[in-house]
Amino acid sequence: MNKIITISREFGSGGREIGKRLADELNYAYYDKEIITAIAKETGMSEEYINNISEKGLYPYAFQFAKSFSVVPTFQSNQTDILVAQQRVIKEIAKKGNCIIVGRGANVILKEYNPMNIFVYSDMESKINRCREKAEENENLSEKEMEKKINQINKERKNFHNVISNIEWGEKSNYNLCINTSNIEIKNIIPSLASYIENWFRGNK
Amino acid sequence: MNKIITISREFGSGGREIGKRLADELNYAYYDKEIITAIAKETGMSEEYINNISEKGLYPYAFQFAKSFSVVPTFQSNQTDILVAQQRVIKEIAKKGNCIIVGRGANVILKEYNPMNIFVYSDMESKINRCREKAEENENLSEKEMEKKINQINKERKNFHNVISNIEWGEKSNYNLCINTSNIEIKNIIPSLASYIENWFRGNK
Repeated sequence: MNKIITISREFGSGGREIGKRLADELNYAYYDKEIITAIAKETGMSEEYINNISEKGLYPYAFQFAKSFSVVPTFQSNQTDILVAQQRVIKEIAKKGNCIIVGRGANVILKEYNPMNIFVYSDMESKINRCREKAEENENLSEKEMEKKINQINKERKNFHNVISNIEWGEKSNYNLCINTSNIEIKNIIPSLASYIENWFRGNK
Repeated sequence: MNKIITISREFGSGGREIGKRLADELNYAYYDKEIITAIAKETGMSEEYINNISEKGLYPYAFQFAKSFSVVPTFQSNQTDILVAQQRVIKEIAKKGNCIIVGRGANVILKEYNPMNIFVYSDMESKINRCREKAEENENLSEKEMEKKINQINKERKNFHNVISNIEWGEKSNYNLCINTSNIEIKNIIPSLASYIENWFRGNK
């Protein structure tokens, strides 16, 4: 069976960097935004719109609103189309070969493939510093605004996850390894992390 | 500064095995029940009594009972003596050299030493299996009784931790790495885990 690593991550924690570097180190395929591109190709919708539905939670909000009034939620059919396409695209990826998938609920969608599920997190100071390093030049947010944005995105990810499954986002029992990236240089931990993962797949009964 | 690793762990998750094997691999001193022996020497009390106070929570229960009625808790002075001795013993250990300390609130007591704090956990099935392997011959608990015992001990550990600090036991943000040992052979992950720890200490800014 293919070896599949899913990476769930708090916004600003460096989860994507870990995913990319691990993919290079392990020689696994890497998927993140490529999934959005594939769904866009399949559905004919724009990548931006798909991105909002596939992880950020336009869909979950509608769902939670409906749930809070105990009515059956109604979805726009194109939202459902996106989630269906996302499932199919991610399952196709899993069949192709060893891979690392960042976000998009892959840990839930690929449960039957026994992936190694990693959660990446860090303290707020580290998250803000990482976001600053990657911010576009015209993005001049204050520390407070940055924190608000980070919390908002993480709330959306949590909501999305809690809607597509009964697995709570970020709750450690749902992951095989939870990595705190506060105050560390990610590139330093990659070789040993790759080796941990290889051993995990070898040792997993 | 000495490199200090603290290991907090769910009962039955193999945290002690990880600690012992890591200490061998890294050539660090290992402390677990040795701490109880040292406190017994210092206070002249029995190891069994100290063990109950120092982690299992006789003291916390009195404390929480008092808290719930909003009164100032009164402790027997020998209980306080044990906690004071525990602090001193653990701080002395930290000054001696690189070490691994399992349990006893060391992650809280040694905060100023910037230890690497690890939390070890697993699903209930794995916990029961590990307990069965280590059970004494005359201990014939049913699966249900075993589960109850495991939950009870973990509840005591959590209570104890929440009384000696405002750091929540098992909440991932309070640890640098959280390791799920479900379905894995611990000895397989030790070399890469040791390497991860060495890199963590090197890379920690």
